[in-house]
Amino acid sequence: MKMYGFWRSLAAYRVRVALKLKGVTFSEEPVNLLGGEQHDPAYLKINPQGAVPALVLDDGQILSQSMAIMEFLEETYPGVTPLLPRDPTGRARVRALCHIGVSDSHPLVVPRIRSYISKDLGLGDEGTAKWLNHWSAESLRIYNDRLSQESQTGIYCHGNELSMADIALASQVVGATGFFGCKLSDYPKVQNIFDALCKVDAFEASLPKHQPGAPT
Amino acid sequence: MKMYGFWRSLAAYRVRVALKLKGVTFSEEPVNLLGGEQHDPAYLKINPQGAVPALVLDDGQILSQSMAIMEFLEETYPGVTPLLPRDPTGRARVRALCHIGVSDSHPLVVPRIRSYISKDLGLGDEGTAKWLNHWSAESLRIYNDRLSQESQTGIYCHGNELSMADIALASQVVGATGFFGCKLSDYPKVQNIFDALCKVDAFEASLPKHQPGAPT
Repeated sequence: MKMYGFWRSLAAYRVRVALKLKGVTFSEEPVNLLGGEQHDPAYLKINPQGAVPALVLDDGQILSQSMAIMEFLEETYPGVTPLLPRDPTGRARVRALCHIGVSDSHPLVVPRIRSYISKDLGLGDEGTAKWLNHWSAESLRIYNDRLSQESQTGIYCHGNELSMADIALASQVVGATGFFGCKLSDYPKVQNIFDALCKVDAFEASLPKHQPGAPT
Repeated sequence: MKMYGFWRSLAAYRVRVALKLKGVTFSEEPVNLLGGEQHDPAYLKINPQGAVPALVLDDGQILSQSMAIMEFLEETYPGVTPLLPRDPTGRARVRALCHIGVSDSHPLVVPRIRSYISKDLGLGDEGTAKWLNHWSAESLRIYNDRLSQESQTGIYCHGNELSMADIALASQVVGATGFFGCKLSDYPKVQNIFDALCKVDAFEASLPKHQPGAPT
Protein backbone atom coordinates (compact mmCIF):
# COMPACT_ATOMS: atom_id res chain seq x y z
CA MET A 1 0.00 0.00 0.00
CA LYS A 2 0.99 3.63 -0.39
CA MET A 3 0.00 6.37 2.01
CA TYR A 4 0.02 10.02 1.04
CA GLY A 5 0.97 11.77 4.26
CA PHE A 6 3.04 14.57 5.75
CA TRP A 7 5.40 14.64 8.72
CA ARG A 8 3.29 17.17 10.57
CA SER A 9 -0.20 15.78 9.82
CA LEU A 10 -1.92 14.34 12.88
CA ALA A 11 -4.40 12.41 10.73
CA ALA A 12 -1.53 10.83 8.76
CA TYR A 13 0.13 9.99 12.09
CA ARG A 14 -2.99 8.05 13.10
CA VAL A 15 -2.99 5.96 9.93
CA ARG A 16 0.80 5.47 10.10
CA VAL A 17 0.46 4.02 13.61
CA ALA A 18 -2.48 1.81 12.59
CA LEU A 19 -0.63 0.44 9.55
CA LYS A 20 2.38 -0.40 11.71
CA LEU A 21 0.26 -2.01 14.45
CA LYS A 22 -1.43 -4.13 11.77
CA GLY A 23 1.94 -5.11 10.30
CA VAL A 24 1.01 -3.80 6.85
CA THR A 25 3.88 -3.09 4.47
CA PHE A 26 3.49 0.43 3.06
CA SER A 27 5.42 3.31 1.61
CA GLU A 28 4.71 6.94 2.39
CA GLU A 29 4.65 9.77 -0.14
CA PRO A 30 4.85 13.24 1.40
CA VAL A 31 2.39 15.97 0.40
CA ASN A 32 3.78 19.27 1.71
CA LEU A 33 0.77 20.77 3.47
CA LEU A 34 2.74 23.85 4.52
CA GLY A 35 3.61 24.45 0.87
CA GLY A 36 0.03 23.94 -0.33
CA GLU A 37 0.75 20.75 -2.32
CA GLN A 38 -2.59 19.32 -1.16
CA HIS A 39 -4.27 21.77 -3.57
CA ASP A 40 -2.27 20.65 -6.63
CA PRO A 41 -4.57 19.32 -9.38
CA ALA A 42 -2.53 16.09 -9.47
CA TYR A 43 -3.15 15.47 -5.77
CA LEU A 44 -6.82 16.48 -5.99
CA LYS A 45 -7.25 13.53 -8.36
CA ILE A 46 -6.08 11.29 -5.53
CA ASN A 47 -8.08 13.01 -2.78
CA PRO A 48 -10.60 15.60 -4.04
CA GLN A 49 -10.82 16.96 -0.50
CA GLY A 50 -7.23 18.18 -0.69
CA ALA A 51 -6.21 16.59 2.59
CA VAL A 52 -4.01 13.79 3.87
CA PRO A 53 -3.98 10.92 4.52
CA ALA A 54 -5.04 9.06 1.39
CA LEU A 55 -4.32 5.34 1.31
CA VAL A 56 -3.81 3.68 -2.06
CA LEU A 57 -4.57 -0.03 -1.87
CA ASP A 58 -2.63 -2.56 -3.92
CA ASP A 59 -5.56 -2.79 -6.37
CA GLY A 60 -5.49 0.99 -6.89
CA GLN A 61 -8.58 1.88 -4.86
CA ILE A 62 -8.07 4.98 -2.74
CA LEU A 63 -9.35 5.50 0.80
CA SER A 64 -9.53 8.77 2.70
CA GLN A 65 -10.36 9.99 6.23
CA SER A 66 -8.29 8.58 9.07
CA MET A 67 -11.17 7.02 11.04
CA ALA A 68 -12.58 5.32 7.95
CA ILE A 69 -9.12 3.97 7.13
CA MET A 70 -8.58 2.67 10.67
CA GLU A 71 -11.97 0.91 10.57
CA PHE A 72 -11.01 -0.58 7.18
CA LEU A 73 -7.70 -1.86 8.54
CA GLU A 74 -9.48 -3.33 11.56
CA GLU A 75 -12.00 -5.14 9.33
CA THR A 76 -9.34 -6.32 6.89
CA TYR A 77 -6.75 -7.47 9.45
CA PRO A 78 -8.89 -8.34 12.50
CA GLY A 79 -6.41 -10.85 13.92
CA VAL A 80 -3.38 -8.57 14.12
CA THR A 81 -3.42 -6.13 17.09
CA PRO A 82 -7.21 -5.70 17.33
CA LEU A 83 -8.01 -1.98 17.56
CA LEU A 84 -11.53 -2.41 18.93
CA PRO A 85 -12.70 -4.53 21.88
CA ARG A 86 -15.23 -7.30 21.26
CA ASP A 87 -18.20 -6.10 23.29
CA PRO A 88 -20.54 -3.59 21.60
CA THR A 89 -20.52 -1.01 24.39
CA GLY A 90 -16.75 -1.27 24.71
CA ARG A 91 -16.47 -0.63 20.97
CA ALA A 92 -18.80 2.36 21.37
CA ARG A 93 -16.65 3.75 24.18
CA VAL A 94 -13.44 3.37 22.15
CA ARG A 95 -15.01 5.05 19.13
CA ALA A 96 -16.45 7.87 21.27
CA LEU A 97 -13.00 8.49 22.73
CA CYS A 98 -11.63 8.64 19.19
CA HIS A 99 -14.14 11.31 18.23
CA ILE A 100 -13.12 13.64 21.07
CA GLY A 101 -9.93 14.14 19.09
CA VAL A 102 -10.74 13.20 15.51
CA SER A 103 -14.10 14.97 15.29
CA ASP A 104 -14.40 17.54 18.06
CA SER A 105 -10.91 18.95 18.15
CA HIS A 106 -8.57 18.13 15.28
CA PRO A 107 -10.78 19.75 12.59
CA LEU A 108 -10.30 23.05 14.46
CA VAL A 109 -6.53 23.09 13.99
CA VAL A 110 -6.00 21.93 10.39
CA PRO A 111 -4.23 24.12 7.79
CA ARG A 112 -7.41 25.50 6.16
CA ILE A 113 -8.69 26.71 9.55
CA ARG A 114 -5.33 28.19 10.55
CA SER A 115 -5.16 30.07 7.27
CA TYR A 116 -8.75 31.34 7.53
CA ILE A 117 -8.28 32.60 11.08
CA SER A 118 -4.95 34.23 10.36
CA LYS A 119 -5.78 35.79 6.98
CA ASP A 120 -9.54 35.94 6.41
CA LEU A 121 -10.40 36.87 9.98
CA GLY A 122 -7.21 38.94 10.17
CA LEU A 123 -6.13 37.61 13.53
CA GLY A 124 -2.56 36.96 12.41
CA ASP A 125 -0.08 34.53 13.91
CA GLU A 126 -0.72 35.52 17.51
CA GLY A 127 -4.51 35.22 17.31
CA THR A 128 -4.19 31.91 15.50
CA ALA A 129 -1.79 30.53 18.10
CA LYS A 130 -4.28 31.44 20.85
CA TRP A 131 -7.10 29.62 19.02
CA LEU A 132 -4.96 26.52 18.46
CA ASN A 133 -3.86 26.42 22.08
CA HIS A 134 -7.38 26.97 23.43
CA TRP A 135 -9.04 24.12 21.54
CA SER A 136 -6.11 21.74 21.94
CA ALA A 137 -6.13 22.29 25.69
CA GLU A 138 -9.90 21.79 25.76
CA SER A 139 -9.59 18.37 24.10
CA LEU A 140 -6.83 17.25 26.49
CA ARG A 141 -8.96 18.40 29.43
CA ILE A 142 -11.93 16.37 28.23
CA TYR A 143 -9.73 13.31 27.60
CA ASN A 144 -8.17 13.67 31.03
CA ASP A 145 -11.56 13.99 32.76
CA ARG A 146 -13.10 10.98 31.04
CA LEU A 147 -10.03 8.76 31.28
CA SER A 148 -9.53 9.52 34.99
CA GLN A 149 -13.19 9.02 35.88
CA GLU A 150 -14.12 5.93 33.89
CA SER A 151 -13.48 2.47 35.29
CA GLN A 152 -12.76 1.00 31.85
CA THR A 153 -9.50 2.96 31.58
CA GLY A 154 -6.40 0.84 32.16
CA ILE A 155 -2.76 1.18 31.17
CA TYR A 156 -4.20 2.38 27.89
CA CYS A 157 -7.46 4.22 27.09
CA HIS A 158 -9.57 1.06 27.22
CA GLY A 159 -8.18 -1.53 29.60
CA ASN A 160 -4.72 -2.93 29.00
CA GLU A 161 -5.01 -3.56 25.26
CA LEU A 162 -4.23 -1.02 22.57
CA SER A 163 -7.15 0.43 20.63
CA MET A 164 -8.07 3.12 18.12
CA ALA A 165 -8.69 5.40 21.09
CA ASP A 166 -4.99 5.31 21.95
CA ILE A 167 -4.12 6.30 18.40
CA ALA A 168 -6.56 9.22 18.51
CA LEU A 169 -5.35 10.29 21.96
CA ALA A 170 -1.70 10.13 20.93
CA SER A 171 -2.37 12.23 17.83
CA GLN A 172 -4.00 14.91 20.00
CA VAL A 173 -1.10 14.91 22.43
CA VAL A 174 1.43 15.11 19.61
CA GLY A 175 -0.32 18.15 18.13
CA ALA A 176 -1.25 19.88 21.37
CA THR A 177 2.17 19.60 23.00
CA GLY A 178 4.39 19.54 19.92
CA PHE A 179 2.79 22.31 17.86
CA PHE A 180 0.18 24.20 19.87
CA GLY A 181 1.83 25.07 23.19
CA CYS A 182 0.04 22.79 25.67
CA LYS A 183 1.84 21.27 28.67
CA LEU A 184 1.30 17.53 28.98
CA SER A 185 1.90 17.63 32.76
CA ASP A 186 -1.38 19.58 33.12
CA TYR A 187 -3.18 16.36 32.16
CA PRO A 188 -1.69 13.62 34.36
CA LYS A 189 -3.90 10.73 33.24
CA VAL A 190 -3.31 11.56 29.59
CA GLN A 191 0.41 11.83 30.33
CA ASN A 192 0.47 8.35 31.96
CA ILE A 193 -1.19 6.77 28.95
CA PHE A 194 0.91 8.67 26.42
CA ASP A 195 4.09 7.61 28.24
CA ALA A 196 2.94 3.98 27.99
CA LEU A 197 2.16 4.42 24.28
CA CYS A 198 5.61 5.87 23.53
CA LYS A 199 7.09 2.55 24.62
CA VAL A 200 5.25 0.88 21.73
CA ASP A 201 7.39 1.02 18.60
CA ALA A 202 4.50 1.75 16.20
CA PHE A 203 3.67 4.92 18.17
CA GLU A 204 7.26 6.07 18.72
CA ALA A 205 8.45 5.40 15.16
CA SER A 206 5.43 7.23 13.72
CA LEU A 207 6.06 10.51 15.55
CA PRO A 208 6.32 13.60 13.32
CA LYS A 209 9.92 14.25 14.36
CA HIS A 210 11.04 10.94 12.83
CA GLN A 211 9.42 11.55 9.42
CA PRO A 212 11.20 12.86 6.31
CA GLY A 213 10.94 16.63 6.06
CA ALA A 214 10.60 17.25 9.80
CA PRO A 215 12.83 20.02 11.18
CA THR A 216 15.92 18.63 12.90
CA MET B 1 -33.68 3.53 25.20
CA LYS B 2 -33.59 7.24 26.01
CA MET B 3 -31.80 9.83 23.91
CA TYR B 4 -30.79 13.20 25.27
CA GLY B 5 -31.13 15.51 22.29
CA PHE B 6 -32.28 18.93 21.16
CA TRP B 7 -34.45 19.99 18.26
CA ARG B 8 -31.67 22.01 16.68
CA SER B 9 -28.76 19.60 17.21
CA LEU B 10 -27.48 18.08 13.98
CA ALA B 11 -25.70 15.28 15.86
CA ALA B 12 -28.93 14.39 17.68
CA TYR B 13 -30.71 14.44 14.31
CA ARG B 14 -28.28 11.80 13.03
CA VAL B 15 -28.93 9.47 15.95
CA ARG B 16 -32.70 10.11 15.78
CA VAL B 17 -32.73 9.04 12.12
CA ALA B 18 -30.58 5.96 12.84
CA LEU B 19 -32.79 4.85 15.75
CA LYS B 20 -35.88 5.18 13.56
CA LEU B 21 -34.27 3.35 10.62
CA LYS B 22 -33.31 0.54 13.01
CA GLY B 23 -36.85 0.42 14.41
CA VAL B 24 -35.65 0.99 17.97
CA THR B 25 -38.22 2.26 20.48
CA PHE B 26 -36.85 5.31 22.25
CA SER B 27 -37.88 8.45 24.06
CA GLU B 28 -36.13 11.79 23.67
CA GLU B 29 -35.31 14.17 26.50
CA PRO B 30 -34.47 17.69 25.37
CA VAL B 31 -31.35 19.46 26.62
CA ASN B 32 -31.69 23.15 25.73
CA LEU B 33 -28.35 23.90 24.08
CA LEU B 34 -29.31 27.51 23.42
CA GLY B 35 -30.04 27.94 27.14
CA GLY B 36 -26.78 26.25 28.21
CA GLU B 37 -28.42 23.23 29.84
CA GLN B 38 -25.63 21.01 28.47
CA HIS B 39 -23.34 22.59 31.11
CA ASP B 40 -25.64 21.77 34.07
CA PRO B 41 -23.87 19.53 36.61
CA ALA B 42 -26.75 17.05 36.38
CA TYR B 43 -26.28 16.69 32.61
CA LEU B 44 -22.48 16.55 32.87
CA LYS B 45 -22.95 13.37 34.89
CA ILE B 46 -24.68 11.90 31.85
CA ASN B 47 -22.22 13.26 29.28
CA PRO B 48 -19.08 14.84 30.77
CA GLN B 49 -18.43 16.48 27.40
CA GLY B 50 -21.52 18.66 27.78
CA ALA B 51 -22.90 17.80 24.38
CA VAL B 52 -25.80 15.93 22.83
CA PRO B 53 -26.65 13.28 21.87
CA ALA B 54 -26.23 10.85 24.74
CA LEU B 55 -27.99 7.52 24.42
CA VAL B 56 -29.00 5.71 27.60
CA LEU B 57 -29.35 1.98 26.98
CA ASP B 58 -31.98 -0.10 28.76
CA ASP B 59 -29.27 -1.43 31.13
CA GLY B 60 -28.26 2.13 32.06
CA GLN B 61 -25.01 2.31 30.09
CA ILE B 62 -24.56 5.65 28.34
CA LEU B 63 -23.13 6.16 24.86
CA SER B 64 -21.97 9.43 23.32
CA GLN B 65 -20.76 10.74 19.94
CA SER B 66 -23.13 10.32 17.00
CA MET B 67 -20.77 8.23 14.83
CA ALA B 68 -19.97 5.85 17.70
CA ILE B 69 -23.70 5.49 18.40
CA MET B 70 -24.52 4.81 14.74
CA GLU B 71 -21.79 2.14 14.59
CA PHE B 72 -23.20 0.62 17.82
CA LEU B 73 -26.72 0.51 16.38
CA GLU B 74 -25.38 -1.07 13.17
CA GLU B 75 -23.53 -3.75 15.14
CA THR B 76 -26.46 -4.38 17.49
CA TYR B 77 -29.23 -4.44 14.85
CA PRO B 78 -27.39 -5.54 11.69
CA GLY B 79 -30.46 -7.05 10.04
CA VAL B 80 -32.71 -3.98 10.14
CA THR B 81 -31.90 -1.34 7.48
CA PRO B 82 -28.15 -2.01 7.21
CA LEU B 83 -26.32 1.32 7.37
CA LEU B 84 -23.04 0.04 5.91
CA PRO B 85 -22.48 -1.98 2.73
CA ARG B 86 -20.88 -5.41 3.00
CA ASP B 87 -17.64 -4.90 1.07
CA PRO B 88 -14.71 -3.39 2.98
CA THR B 89 -13.92 -0.61 0.50
CA GLY B 90 -17.62 0.27 0.22
CA ARG B 91 -17.75 0.54 4.01
CA ALA B 92 -14.65 2.74 3.92
CA ARG B 93 -16.27 5.01 1.32
CA VAL B 94 -19.47 5.36 3.34
CA ARG B 95 -17.54 6.16 6.50
CA ALA B 96 -15.30 8.65 4.66
CA LEU B 97 -18.41 10.42 3.34
CA CYS B 98 -19.74 10.54 6.91
CA HIS B 99 -16.58 12.25 8.12
CA ILE B 100 -16.84 15.09 5.58
CA GLY B 101 -19.77 16.26 7.64
CA VAL B 102 -19.33 14.72 11.08
CA SER B 103 -15.60 15.42 11.45
CA ASP B 104 -14.54 18.07 8.98
CA SER B 105 -17.47 20.43 9.09
CA HIS B 106 -19.98 20.02 11.89
CA PRO B 107 -17.44 20.61 14.71
CA LEU B 108 -16.91 24.10 13.22
CA VAL B 109 -20.52 25.18 13.78
CA VAL B 110 -21.42 23.82 17.22
CA PRO B 111 -22.52 26.13 20.09
CA ARG B 112 -19.11 26.34 21.80
CA ILE B 113 -17.48 27.51 18.56
CA ARG B 114 -20.25 30.00 17.78
CA SER B 115 -19.92 31.46 21.26
CA TYR B 116 -16.10 31.65 21.08
CA ILE B 117 -16.14 33.39 17.71
CA SER B 118 -18.85 35.81 18.65
CA LYS B 119 -17.68 36.69 22.16
CA ASP B 120 -14.03 35.68 22.70
CA LEU B 121 -12.89 36.71 19.24
CA GLY B 122 -15.33 39.63 19.33
CA LEU B 123 -16.71 39.04 15.85
CA GLY B 124 -20.33 39.34 16.97
CA ASP B 125 -23.37 37.93 15.25
CA GLU B 126 -22.41 39.07 11.76
CA GLY B 127 -18.88 37.67 11.88
CA THR B 128 -20.17 34.42 13.31
CA ALA B 129 -22.82 34.10 10.61
CA LYS B 130 -20.14 34.55 7.94
CA TRP B 131 -18.00 31.80 9.52
CA LEU B 132 -20.94 29.40 9.75
CA ASN B 133 -21.97 30.02 6.16
CA HIS B 134 -18.42 29.68 4.83
CA TRP B 135 -17.69 26.28 6.36
CA SER B 136 -21.18 24.91 5.74
CA ALA B 137 -20.93 25.86 2.07
CA GLU B 138 -17.48 24.29 1.89
CA SER B 139 -18.79 20.95 3.15
CA LEU B 140 -21.71 20.94 0.69
CA ARG B 141 -19.28 21.75 -2.13
CA ILE B 142 -17.06 18.82 -1.21
CA TYR B 143 -20.05 16.48 -0.89
CA ASN B 144 -21.39 17.67 -4.23
CA ASP B 145 -18.02 17.18 -5.96
CA ARG B 146 -17.45 13.68 -4.62
CA LEU B 147 -21.02 12.49 -5.06
CA SER B 148 -21.21 13.77 -8.65
CA GLN B 149 -17.84 12.33 -9.66
CA GLU B 150 -17.88 8.90 -8.05
CA SER B 151 -19.47 5.95 -9.81
CA GLN B 152 -20.65 4.37 -6.54
CA THR B 153 -23.20 7.15 -6.01
CA GLY B 154 -26.77 6.11 -6.77
CA ILE B 155 -30.19 7.38 -5.69
CA TYR B 156 -28.51 7.72 -2.32
CA CYS B 157 -24.88 8.44 -1.38
CA HIS B 158 -23.77 4.84 -1.89
CA GLY B 159 -25.81 3.05 -4.51
CA ASN B 160 -29.53 2.65 -4.02
CA GLU B 161 -29.50 1.55 -0.39
CA LEU B 162 -29.55 3.89 2.58
CA SER B 163 -26.36 4.20 4.62
CA MET B 164 -24.77 6.22 7.41
CA ALA B 165 -23.44 8.54 4.70
CA ASP B 166 -27.01 9.62 3.90
CA ILE B 167 -27.61 10.41 7.55
CA ALA B 168 -24.43 12.49 7.73
CA LEU B 169 -25.22 14.25 4.44
CA ALA B 170 -28.78 15.04 5.50
CA SER B 171 -27.57 16.49 8.80
CA GLN B 172 -25.19 18.81 6.92
CA VAL B 173 -27.94 19.91 4.55
CA VAL B 174 -30.35 20.54 7.42
CA GLY B 175 -27.82 22.75 9.22
CA ALA B 176 -26.37 24.49 6.16
CA THR B 177 -29.70 25.39 4.58
CA GLY B 178 -31.89 25.63 7.67
CA PHE B 179 -29.58 27.58 10.00
CA PHE B 180 -26.51 28.85 8.18
CA GLY B 181 -27.78 30.52 5.01
CA CYS B 182 -26.69 28.10 2.25
CA LYS B 183 -28.81 27.53 -0.87
CA LEU B 184 -29.37 23.85 -1.62
CA SER B 185 -29.84 24.54 -5.34
CA ASP B 186 -26.13 25.48 -5.55
CA TYR B 187 -25.36 21.78 -4.97
CA PRO B 188 -27.54 19.86 -7.44
CA LYS B 189 -26.29 16.34 -6.69
CA VAL B 190 -26.67 16.90 -2.97
CA GLN B 191 -30.14 18.31 -3.62
CA ASN B 192 -31.18 15.21 -5.61
CA ILE B 193 -30.10 12.89 -2.83
CA PHE B 194 -31.60 15.02 -0.07
CA ASP B 195 -34.91 15.14 -1.95
CA ALA B 196 -34.88 11.33 -2.11
CA LEU B 197 -34.07 11.10 1.61
CA CYS B 198 -36.95 13.40 2.56
CA LYS B 199 -39.33 10.79 1.13
CA VAL B 200 -38.08 8.34 3.78
CA ASP B 201 -40.15 8.73 6.94
CA ALA B 202 -37.20 8.34 9.38
CA PHE B 203 -35.48 11.33 7.74
CA GLU B 204 -38.56 13.51 7.40
CA ALA B 205 -39.96 12.83 10.87
CA SER B 206 -36.54 13.53 12.46
CA LEU B 207 -36.19 17.04 11.02
CA PRO B 208 -35.57 19.80 13.58
CA LYS B 209 -38.82 21.57 12.68
CA HIS B 210 -40.88 18.59 13.85
CA GLN B 211 -39.21 18.33 17.28
CA PRO B 212 -40.57 19.73 20.55
CA GLY B 213 -39.23 23.22 21.22
CA ALA B 214 -38.65 24.13 17.57
CA PRO B 215 -39.97 27.55 16.54
CA THR B 216 -43.31 27.34 14.71
